[in-house]
Amino acid sequence: MMFFRFSTSSSFSSFSILLPKPHIFLPFKSYTTSFAAQIMPCKLIFRQLFEKESSTYTYLLADSLHPDKPALLIDPVDRTVDRDLALVKELGLKLIYAINTHVHADHVTGSGLIKTKVPGVKSIISKASNAKADLFVEPGDKIYIGDIYLEVRATPGHTLGCLTYVTGDGVNQPQPRMAFTGDALLIRGCGRTDFQGGSSDKLYDSVHSQIFTLPKDTLVYPAHDYKGFTVSTVGEEMLYNPRLSKDKETFKNIMQNLNLSYPKMIDIAVPSNMVCGLQETKSDL
Amino acid sequence: MMFFRFSTSSSFSSFSILLPKPHIFLPFKSYTTSFAAQIMPCKLIFRQLFEKESSTYTYLLADSLHPDKPALLIDPVDRTVDRDLALVKELGLKLIYAINTHVHADHVTGSGLIKTKVPGVKSIISKASNAKADLFVEPGDKIYIGDIYLEVRATPGHTLGCLTYVTGDGVNQPQPRMAFTGDALLIRGCGRTDFQGGSSDKLYDSVHSQIFTLPKDTLVYPAHDYKGFTVSTVGEEMLYNPRLSKDKETFKNIMQNLNLSYPKMIDIAVPSNMVCGLQETKSDL
Repeated sequence: MMFFRFSTSSSFSSFSILLPKPHIFLPFKSYTTSFAAQIMPCKLIFRQLFEKESSTYTYLLADSLHPDKPALLIDPVDRTVDRDLALVKELGLKLIYAINTHVHADHVTGSGLIKTKVPGVKSIISKASNAKADLFVEPGDKIYIGDIYLEVRATPGHTLGCLTYVTGDGVNQPQPRMAFTGDALLIRGCGRTDFQGGSSDKLYDSVHSQIFTLPKDTLVYPAHDYKGFTVSTVGEEMLYNPRLSKDKETFKNIMQNLNLSYPKMIDIAVPSNMVCGLQETKSDL
Repeated sequence: MMFFRFSTSSSFSSFSILLPKPHIFLPFKSYTTSFAAQIMPCKLIFRQLFEKESSTYTYLLADSLHPDKPALLIDPVDRTVDRDLALVKELGLKLIYAINTHVHADHVTGSGLIKTKVPGVKSIISKASNAKADLFVEPGDKIYIGDIYLEVRATPGHTLGCLTYVTGDGVNQPQPRMAFTGDALLIRGCGRTDFQGGSSDKLYDSVHSQIFTLPKDTLVYPAHDYKGFTVSTVGEEMLYNPRLSKDKETFKNIMQNLNLSYPKMIDIAVPSNMVCGLQETKSDL
């Protein structure tokens, strides 16, 4: 459905303010008219970026209709920060958030490095992660870039603090919705549950209650893929995920018998990612 | 803009017929009303798939609104045929075409293997390639899957027979348009021009006349990426492609001084890809 803006594009602004409770931040908006807000079209700039050493997907989202073109990165990787920031610059975007779905064990996040290179960028992670960041989010919080927002859903099980970020529900939000599932739900797979507070019991409940309840055409964008897939849908994973389409006991049994080796990066990555990827920093991390 | 179908989804059919001139095939359609054809919504199923050994992208496109869900694969790779066909099956699609943008030098196409696994699939390549296939296309031809079509554009220069496939221009076609550029235009790069009838002069003209004339928001989906990018736009490449944004003489000079090594797969891949990836086959290739 196409909507037309009835006010000029420079007549509104959208930004986030921190409330006294430090883990909650809410958008503050001033529109020319509330009618304009309701009929605002969604013009998402979206890029999926791949880091091949750790098979990690980084996602760039921005609101092209906002005069500032505010942008965020989900799960940036330290090794590809320069690539990502060059793209942000070329697209004329203003990066405001560097967000992690969880404390990764297989690569070092680029959040801290980004903060040193782009002043003003705020790092975001879940409060439940116990990691350091500028902003902490909890289930139900919304993260705005212009008029586009991500809804925060708690999906623990791979780690205690795993989040899934889902684009907003509404005519002026991306259609179909997009779910950035981190390691909770991978394409035809899921993250392991044998360290970092992992729990197959919790992961099953998380995915079934927080992701599989989304519309079936919701696009699933995971933090990793190892087989060359780039996207899936909720409906597909409900049917064909070889682990999570099973009943809970079968799932727990599968996860208990994966016999995976110790992640080669974990002893470097986890301590580093607890502080945005920079173990020693002069910034205000 | 959203359109609504006024006839039932099963009341029309779309398929291709071969005309006496063997390299031309045109769609034959019978609609309930011509009005229905004009207001037909586009519901493209689209997947980008990656083969990491050769950094090749394979693209799956299908028309979800057609009762048969007809589908095609662009640039399938032999190593990932089973993955791609499993996805086709899970999505309930009917694969009808396996298409190549050109005779690849860096991997073996999956077209021939697909034909042995899925009876009825037709392989397609340019007439100018001089390769074997079931169907040969020339500039201006249209390849239909249901109501969605790809327009064939000649973009020689990496090889003599390189094509770019562009989704149709119209309200019932994907918006924005999508250009599958093969090796003619890569994201911030282009294919080499030093073998297989390559010509930097021709490549420059091809990209500028056939791709850079498309709307600037046209999505650019290349055959390869080596840096983790998945998509670009025509507007971006016109501005930021470090080779093709330059004038022609500068471009030719850049291409003449790349000093690239001999492709490790070329002596296997090219002869194989001249016959759809199967050098000896009992099929009707």
